[in-house]
Amino acid sequence: MRPIIPDYLAEVLGDVESDTSGEPAGYIPELAAADPERLGAAFAMIGGEVYGAGDFDIEFTIQSISKPFAYALALSDRGFDSVLAKVGVEPSGEAFNEISLESDTGRPLNPMINAGAITVHSLTGAEDLKPAERVERVLHGLSAFAGRRLRMDEAVCASEMENAHRNLAIAHMLRSHDILTEDPRPIVDGYTRQCSVLVTTRDLAMMAATLANRGINPLSGEQVVPEAVVRQVLSVMFSCGMYDAAGDWATQVGIPAKSGVAGGLIGALPGQIGIATFSPRLDRHGNSVRGVSLFERFSSDMGLHVMGVPAAARAVVRSDHVVGSGPSALRVLQLQGGIGFAGAERIVQEAEGISPSNVRVALDLTRVHSIDDVARRMLLEVARRLTLDGHEVYLVDPESIIPDPDPGDGGRVTVVDNVGHADLHTATAGGGQIG
Amino acid sequence: MRPIIPDYLAEVLGDVESDTSGEPAGYIPELAAADPERLGAAFAMIGGEVYGAGDFDIEFTIQSISKPFAYALALSDRGFDSVLAKVGVEPSGEAFNEISLESDTGRPLNPMINAGAITVHSLTGAEDLKPAERVERVLHGLSAFAGRRLRMDEAVCASEMENAHRNLAIAHMLRSHDILTEDPRPIVDGYTRQCSVLVTTRDLAMMAATLANRGINPLSGEQVVPEAVVRQVLSVMFSCGMYDAAGDWATQVGIPAKSGVAGGLIGALPGQIGIATFSPRLDRHGNSVRGVSLFERFSSDMGLHVMGVPAAARAVVRSDHVVGSGPSALRVLQLQGGIGFAGAERIVQEAEGISPSNVRVALDLTRVHSIDDVARRMLLEVARRLTLDGHEVYLVDPESIIPDPDPGDGGRVTVVDNVGHADLHTATAGGGQIG
Amino acid sequence: MRPIIPDYLAEVLGDVESDTSGEPAGYIPELAAADPERLGAAFAMIGGEVYGAGDFDIEFTIQSISKPFAYALALSDRGFDSVLAKVGVEPSGEAFNEISLESDTGRPLNPMINAGAITVHSLTGAEDLKPAERVERVLHGLSAFAGRRLRMDEAVCASEMENAHRNLAIAHMLRSHDILTEDPRPIVDGYTRQCSVLVTTRDLAMMAATLANRGINPLSGEQVVPEAVVRQVLSVMFSCGMYDAAGDWATQVGIPAKSGVAGGLIGALPGQIGIATFSPRLDRHGNSVRGVSLFERFSSDMGLHVMGVPAAARAVVRSDHVVGSGPSALRVLQLQGGIGFAGAERIVQEAEGISPSNVRVALDLTRVHSIDDVARRMLLEVARRLTLDGHEVYLVDPESIIPDPDPGDGGRVTVVDNVGHADLHTATAGGGQIG
Amino acid sequence: MRPIIPDYLAEVLGDVESDTSGEPAGYIPELAAADPERLGAAFAMIGGEVYGAGDFDIEFTIQSISKPFAYALALSDRGFDSVLAKVGVEPSGEAFNEISLESDTGRPLNPMINAGAITVHSLTGAEDLKPAERVERVLHGLSAFAGRRLRMDEAVCASEMENAHRNLAIAHMLRSHDILTEDPRPIVDGYTRQCSVLVTTRDLAMMAATLANRGINPLSGEQVVPEAVVRQVLSVMFSCGMYDAAGDWATQVGIPAKSGVAGGLIGALPGQIGIATFSPRLDRHGNSVRGVSLFERFSSDMGLHVMGVPAAARAVVRSDHVVGSGPSALRVLQLQGGIGFAGAERIVQEAEGISPSNVRVALDLTRVHSIDDVARRMLLEVARRLTLDGHEVYLVDPESIIPDPDPGDGGRVTVVDNVGHADLHTATAGGGQIG
Repeated sequence: MRPIIPDYLAEVLGDVESDTSGEPAGYIPELAAADPERLGAAFAMIGGEVYGAGDFDIEFTIQSISKPFAYALALSDRGFDSVLAKVGVEPSGEAFNEISLESDTGRPLNPMINAGAITVHSLTGAEDLKPAERVERVLHGLSAFAGRRLRMDEAVCASEMENAHRNLAIAHMLRSHDILTEDPRPIVDGYTRQCSVLVTTRDLAMMAATLANRGINPLSGEQVVPEAVVRQVLSVMFSCGMYDAAGDWATQVGIPAKSGVAGGLIGALPGQIGIATFSPRLDRHGNSVRGVSLFERFSSDMGLHVMGVPAAARAVVRSDHVVGSGPSALRVLQLQGGIGFAGAERIVQEAEGISPSNVRVALDLTRVHSIDDVARRMLLEVARRLTLDGHEVYLVDPESIIPDPDPGDGGRVTVVDNVGHADLHTATAGGGQIG
Repeated sequence: MRPIIPDYLAEVLGDVESDTSGEPAGYIPELAAADPERLGAAFAMIGGEVYGAGDFDIEFTIQSISKPFAYALALSDRGFDSVLAKVGVEPSGEAFNEISLESDTGRPLNPMINAGAITVHSLTGAEDLKPAERVERVLHGLSAFAGRRLRMDEAVCASEMENAHRNLAIAHMLRSHDILTEDPRPIVDGYTRQCSVLVTTRDLAMMAATLANRGINPLSGEQVVPEAVVRQVLSVMFSCGMYDAAGDWATQVGIPAKSGVAGGLIGALPGQIGIATFSPRLDRHGNSVRGVSLFERFSSDMGLHVMGVPAAARAVVRSDHVVGSGPSALRVLQLQGGIGFAGAERIVQEAEGISPSNVRVALDLTRVHSIDDVARRMLLEVARRLTLDGHEVYLVDPESIIPDPDPGDGGRVTVVDNVGHADLHTATAGGGQIG
Repeated sequence: MRPIIPDYLAEVLGDVESDTSGEPAGYIPELAAADPERLGAAFAMIGGEVYGAGDFDIEFTIQSISKPFAYALALSDRGFDSVLAKVGVEPSGEAFNEISLESDTGRPLNPMINAGAITVHSLTGAEDLKPAERVERVLHGLSAFAGRRLRMDEAVCASEMENAHRNLAIAHMLRSHDILTEDPRPIVDGYTRQCSVLVTTRDLAMMAATLANRGINPLSGEQVVPEAVVRQVLSVMFSCGMYDAAGDWATQVGIPAKSGVAGGLIGALPGQIGIATFSPRLDRHGNSVRGVSLFERFSSDMGLHVMGVPAAARAVVRSDHVVGSGPSALRVLQLQGGIGFAGAERIVQEAEGISPSNVRVALDLTRVHSIDDVARRMLLEVARRLTLDGHEVYLVDPESIIPDPDPGDGGRVTVVDNVGHADLHTATAGGGQIG
Repeated sequence: MRPIIPDYLAEVLGDVESDTSGEPAGYIPELAAADPERLGAAFAMIGGEVYGAGDFDIEFTIQSISKPFAYALALSDRGFDSVLAKVGVEPSGEAFNEISLESDTGRPLNPMINAGAITVHSLTGAEDLKPAERVERVLHGLSAFAGRRLRMDEAVCASEMENAHRNLAIAHMLRSHDILTEDPRPIVDGYTRQCSVLVTTRDLAMMAATLANRGINPLSGEQVVPEAVVRQVLSVMFSCGMYDAAGDWATQVGIPAKSGVAGGLIGALPGQIGIATFSPRLDRHGNSVRGVSLFERFSSDMGLHVMGVPAAARAVVRSDHVVGSGPSALRVLQLQGGIGFAGAERIVQEAEGISPSNVRVALDLTRVHSIDDVARRMLLEVARRLTLDGHEVYLVDPESIIPDPDPGDGGRVTVVDNVGHADLHTATAGGGQIG
């Protein structure tokens, strides 16, 4: 069976490819020299599967996308009280490089603006760390989110330090308010190193999936940060992650997100999925032009809005076994619960493992109590493709969870009441309801 | 069986009752004269059940809590484009009565500040409505959200109009930017009437539940506004509903919410629940002091944070039937899917309908694939109370969804592998695992 | 003799005539319809003479130029404390129509922005005036500054009221802060009437000259407002009169000034001159383009900068010599010009050099044409101390520049008509006037 | 004779001595350790005399009082255009340590806030100076203003550098906008050195007097900066010198002024006086409490308000009479005092009243002690036009107030020593000097 989700991703990338508006970040030569045509996208499921299309294995610097993860590390390392005493959680409604300190305390308004992120960097690791140890702590933490050891782009880092006037200004201002309590320059240096970590779109999707998965990396199974930290981080991303376009994003896309000046963009939907895109041309807010378009499309196509009513996201595939043997052997995928996009993805993944020799395949919906639009369409597409691959497909659907199923365009499906009935209809033409 | 949720509500109200900090709104005599000791809370489930405690049937004026509902009506009546052209969706980080217009267009930053809400009022109903007709349209719409015909408090309304200087200032400013296109005074008058609608805490919970339930009033079944409108409204409530405390609320409570100056406070968790509280003393942000405490408690106790990973919320009780007859008859509640707070609530409700004559009761978890902490505790509490009421309780749990169940304090439960086994153990002492 | 100053004015008008940049105010039809080619300028000397060139006898509406004069009237009618309690004196650095209220008190930052000017209008006349009486008080006051009975342009006034949304917004905001204590609409109506008073460039120059002349209209001789009020008004004009271009104006032109949206512009240089220009095309700050050019030219050509050192401040002690010899020798300090504190200091310094052997000392005021309070007191103190040191002191004061001189407390002075008379009175007891 | 002005100063110091409100600046130990009881005041006259009372010869650090002088040096060294391109002249209405940069250009709003002053420091001296040379240039310049070689307090300087976080923040921000074009740290170091220059109250008074005296140090006679620079500096001091209390100061005191955090305060009244006070306790604006009181007292007692009408500006035409009769009759305009534009206008006006029958006309300058450029030109133009009208014109100018008078273009004037001499020269050709 051909893979459904990469096909979908490739199609959507194709749709946005022609948009060449915006400009790559130009403030340092290394970023300005980025190939503006690069385009990639990846989905990382909380079950660990990653789907990608385009340049999703090309490395680029993480930049501001490091902010929510460093925030998670600081909350985890120092505790909520210590971090909240130094960095607020209020949206600033301002651009990323605004200083936006509280007038009385000098506390940065939130950890997504540079003032907050520089402070957060200083709060990672234990209190007595030396600057280089702190950088190593952050690199280690980001790597844990990604599930592989990451490294820095020294050239970008050096170039950024040469142009770090504004961040130095911010850091000295924070120092004057005792928000920073050390020499500002090594902190800005460390923060710049944090921003220079190289990631692929795949890495970013996996990092987002770790947030979506209660802080547990879906591949390594490591609990990188506690679940309460994840809720905090996702909330702040939702309100503050897209700078002065935060409200538009929250309403239209509805996925906690964060963008980086190198062209990356991530989103994490709790309990479901981590998404990442990469395209270097930026809009006036500093967000990737095509990245924003992709997320709008994903949110709309897959009903991923955090304010949408969710379907259950776990253990959708209850079992996958073969009944009988020989030509009449039946491969049965027993499904359960409520199925949304994320659940459907699990089914797709399972279906892709079906060998050509399993001619007869049953999708058993007996224990499924609900299914949303996108999941229904995905299941029918699974059926269609299995048909095209030469399989006979049965839908075991005693409660008509999917009424009048029509896979369309060459697909064929036989609806039966229970798995036993599938045996009786080996040679029956598809599409008919059998009671 | 004694009711679980009202007991819980009463207990939590008791915990906050001693907090007499804050002051009722004092800008008009009618509000200042409110009894500051009033305290009520209500839950409205998307299935339609309402639980309340304290003064939850006392009427008070809706005030700013009308804002998200009027916004929903305007989006529904005029379409997204018309409304977004006049009112933004960006957090202002400012107090409710700040003007906060975009410097170039004069567009209010969001519909939750007064400038936005006054503009929204002018956008409700068809374009050619007369002011009085527009007020009737809003009143009708709010009533549809509440599921009963609401009315206005004319005394509060008249008193507010006498002190409406600031709103008149805002409206004239909006008129100068052509955001308002009519005489400002009747619009402010209409907006003041909108704010003077009388509601109970029960009404507010039901209005919130309508938002939580994709725009469908759980009782009347009326689709008051489309689902896309609800997502928009909830997103804006999440970012802007609590004024300059929006970030704290979003992170700590994590429920899209709105407060009113008369002491009301609502929250809506998509797919799960509408919550409302009432206590007139306000903090410096203009939010009800005890209301904020109650929501913090609810969010924490019940895992209601919108950035928490949800469990499925529908059709948790698959069937409720009696097997056999006579003394050995067994009342079976067959459950399914993933169970969170909202699902557990449905089970509690079902269990409350069990008559004393159904001595033997089974909670069948065979089709349940997940259950969260609060739901587990609630189910065990159901078992305990049924025991105390003289029932014998069986947990049919072949996959140990609830390992080592202990209802505690007088409760007793017998775990069995399937409903048939319950028959075999009529006289067995509780607590033992039977394979 | 051909007139010099009108020739100069005509020449300078000719130089700026070709500049057709800027646009007349367009917010009401009556102003937009103004002939943009109109160009006039006038000088009014504190002696009463008026010189004009171009369209300096064409009437137009005074608009914001009424602000400093109404401020003077309010200070005069209600006293400094009452007015300062309601309107500040700090520059706002903002455009004329910004609200700019102090965040805590709601007090407008200064009387030159609309918020301040509307408040000032409400503070003119006695406290119990009706709105129409207040307008009459302002009209009467403006007429006194101009030296002729002025009248309103009813068409402009009516047109402005139709577009007064922003001023109504401001007034309602002021009402909400209790800065205004009456119904805002009649106050805005009255303020609009104040702005609709018709003046010619000649009138404006005379009004400015009244400010330059310590509050006394040079023609009528009427003390329109007290001198202390004038100092206050000129200081505020210097800092706040040209809106957000105030600093450029203060440094480059250096004349306390005020512009109006109909194209008028006035400047007042204390003790010297009132200047007015008229040209309807405005720059982005709302100031007349050619008016600004004319003032730059006037300031530069005529050395009118308020921070320039005035020509008249030097060489107060014309000579210090001894007439005669022996016991009747007379030490004569011949003084000249106008004497203020700095001049008096020079005299004190000179007097300290008088040796005890110069028993007889004359302060010769024959060439002194004016002396202010502090200088008069210092001169008498010099006389007193010289008396105490054993000197006989003569005041040569043929024109009674210091009438009834009384050094007090042991001092004694003999007034004579000329130095020669001092010889005649060697033995005379002091204090008597000798003619 | 006992000295009058020191007595006055001592009396006024005694009156404010009991006010111990406010606190010395506490941000560095060296300033916090200042004796808060110190109190001194000094007047420096433009003639060079200095009067002092109290601790007026105690040294303290100049701090922000260096700002207007460094601004004068930068304008003088680099020209107006270069400096204005980098630092504005608009009041900020904000506290001294606000950043207050123009949002588009990053240009500091004015040279009196730290951002502007740091930029100004970088603009002193020639463009290619090294940091240490620039400090020496500033020290040399400040010394020239004071009339003696000043030196730095190295302990204060070192202490300030340790606490210069905010200034470093500002400097890095300026660097990020290319307002500073060098490494920010040495500039902040140099600026800190500038602020650490030690001065006495006497020095400050003399420095202010140099501003009051057209840029010429009254003692040394050195033209430290050009007169146009002084006008610019005084204008900016008037609008921006007292931070967010600028408007109160401008109206109540009316003297261009500047305060320093070590307790110094200066004022300069053009053409009259430089004033300085010293008292370390500061109000919430950072201005010396007793210093402000002293200046209010000085301004009120001595009529020093810059918007007050100077004593010396009236009665330029002392008399206008005819001497003799018949063909030799001489029309004499007897002039007096100092003549500027306004005075010249009075003369023009008088001259226009001369009938053709008064063939012979004398302008008697005997009692005139000074005349400025524009007035000189106007007088000669009067002479020219009278000549063209057929008059014979005499200039009675025994002290050569107008040297080498040349009316030009058809004008002719005969210079004589006294009016009597005009009789002798009835038939003489014009232009010759007659002694």
